[in-house]
Amino acid sequence: MRTIWLEPDGGAVGIIDQTRLPHDFVAVQLGTLAEAAHAIRAMLVRGAPLIGATAAYGLCLAARADPALPALERAAELLNATRPTAVNLAWAIRRMMTSLRATDTGNRAPAAYAEAARIADEDAAQCEAIGRHGATLIEAIARQRPGRVNLLTHCNAGWLATVDWGTALAPIYVAHERGLDLHVWVDETRPRNQGASLTAWELGRHGVPHTVIADNAGGHLMQHGKVDLVFVGADRVTRHGDVANKIGTYLKALAAHDNGVPFHVAVPSSTIDWALADGVREIPIEERKGNEVAIMTGRTETGDIASVRITPETSPTANPAFDVTPARLVTGLITERGCCAASQAGLHALFPEAA
Amino acid sequence: MRTIWLEPDGGAVGIIDQTRLPHDFVAVQLGTLAEAAHAIRAMLVRGAPLIGATAAYGLCLAARADPALPALERAAELLNATRPTAVNLAWAIRRMMTSLRATDTGNRAPAAYAEAARIADEDAAQCEAIGRHGATLIEAIARQRPGRVNLLTHCNAGWLATVDWGTALAPIYVAHERGLDLHVWVDETRPRNQGASLTAWELGRHGVPHTVIADNAGGHLMQHGKVDLVFVGADRVTRHGDVANKIGTYLKALAAHDNGVPFHVAVPSSTIDWALADGVREIPIEERKGNEVAIMTGRTETGDIASVRITPETSPTANPAFDVTPARLVTGLITERGCCAASQAGLHALFPEAA
Repeated sequence: MRTIWLEPDGGAVGIIDQTRLPHDFVAVQLGTLAEAAHAIRAMLVRGAPLIGATAAYGLCLAARADPALPALERAAELLNATRPTAVNLAWAIRRMMTSLRATDTGNRAPAAYAEAARIADEDAAQCEAIGRHGATLIEAIARQRPGRVNLLTHCNAGWLATVDWGTALAPIYVAHERGLDLHVWVDETRPRNQGASLTAWELGRHGVPHTVIADNAGGHLMQHGKVDLVFVGADRVTRHGDVANKIGTYLKALAAHDNGVPFHVAVPSSTIDWALADGVREIPIEERKGNEVAIMTGRTETGDIASVRITPETSPTANPAFDVTPARLVTGLITERGCCAASQAGLHALFPEAA
Repeated sequence: MRTIWLEPDGGAVGIIDQTRLPHDFVAVQLGTLAEAAHAIRAMLVRGAPLIGATAAYGLCLAARADPALPALERAAELLNATRPTAVNLAWAIRRMMTSLRATDTGNRAPAAYAEAARIADEDAAQCEAIGRHGATLIEAIARQRPGRVNLLTHCNAGWLATVDWGTALAPIYVAHERGLDLHVWVDETRPRNQGASLTAWELGRHGVPHTVIADNAGGHLMQHGKVDLVFVGADRVTRHGDVANKIGTYLKALAAHDNGVPFHVAVPSSTIDWALADGVREIPIEERKGNEVAIMTGRTETGDIASVRITPETSPTANPAFDVTPARLVTGLITERGCCAASQAGLHALFPEAA
């Protein structure tokens, strides 16, 4: 099963409503551009690669309704504005529009579906390759000493964040399938709890040993030798190797650096923004609603889904959704073409055509 | 109003049930040693100085029931085992027992109440002094440039964590009362949310401008110049200046260091453990129940208090409650005798009789 698929009617697009996990597994059908934009904006789908694939299918739904170019340009603009940080969104829309602008009006809808399918298939293949390359890093630790390899991950960069496999979790799945004894510390990932709700759910379904921890705990675990490797995904990587990822990633990178723990960022090349250099200055950081901090949703003892406020009614909240980890704190990038240093030189060696 | 008081009957002890804040303000009467031990263990009271004062009053309640020394030694042992990390607990019990062992059986109960009152009064006075010393650091920033001074704090080291005033928040209250324009970023402080529930409530009641943020957000805010000073409290400081405080403090110290933001730790001398040197190796770190990570309590839209599970039922959780910030990351300590470097030399200069 993938996270996004074409429905049997050949037009509508199916997704998993990730806001309902881990308590309910609910598939949702997207029939219009507006529904696709809503799914991205309201985070029914999230994760940079899946945002890109959903935007691509959003343009298919737009082309099905009106294949004229002005309508498609407006659709592209609408989708581009849904979320600001993940560069895969702009990348997928640009790729789709390049193809659609070169296609006759009458052929645009089928051409859009074909291109979106290619984007989805390529993402799955790239993530599988990331899994194979990243697994060698886990295997290297396992060869160095006996016992379980302990990884730490932040947010959800798994199957659910991509079309299939995941980015940061792909190497973990590959290593687990190869029989390695591993265990994953899962950062809860406040305020939206993607670690507690999505990563824990994914790893549990795949039988990968894991433990959910508060985001605050990772530094302490690293100080006490309980983390061998940190693997995270990214929403945007600059050509210098700076990494925008879920808020709090930077704090884990600092702790990894302070304790000599390797810190790797797994990304398909669609997440690399070759136009940007300095991530802290240049990557736009989404500010989300403060209610995501103030109000927490979960399952009550009686099985109902309920939301509870944890802050005083009168206290304001702020909610920056991403932060930027400078390249100097990143041990390496894991891409579909292999591992490289988080630097212009490292990226250039793997992607000479782009860098 | 203080956080702990003698009830009008002259025997029972009143506290605020801090597990009910910010939604309900409920005072609880402690009539027995067992009730005092429960209040500490179940965190009706928390914060190193208040834990110490509550343990002192716990021994009063024990002495009232049975002033014989063997019974008091058992009471001391029981209280000592309630929580492992805050050294104020052992400090207050040691001080009480030294006094009680030197007192005739018939006079032990009144002597205990007198000594506990002195501990509480001294804590309030020390915290007020910390407030005055720490306020000079805020004023120095305000003199350097126009505009609001932004502070960040983790967990609750306010009035509620002590007998009165607080440690990290005392300087903020003093500076606010002196009319300084300041604003506090309040770390939510997962998993027990002491920032979101206690610090936000305290600051709101005092009219201090503040914003609640996820623990993950502080590094990002520091990268963008939005934090001028970090003030935290501590549960134990070694003679070398290593600081045990609420889990996640170390991550904020790393971010402050990486961004040149001063990071100060406010402690009464009762929090300094002169017997320990290396905090990471020597300070015992409490492991609390994983349910504190898995289950979140708050107020529903209809006003009820409810608990919701945020993790999958089958995912294990881990919950280390404190971490240790090495002295190299601490800009300075703020004590009742003034500010000093977080080092043996710095502490020795202020406390020559102890260091």
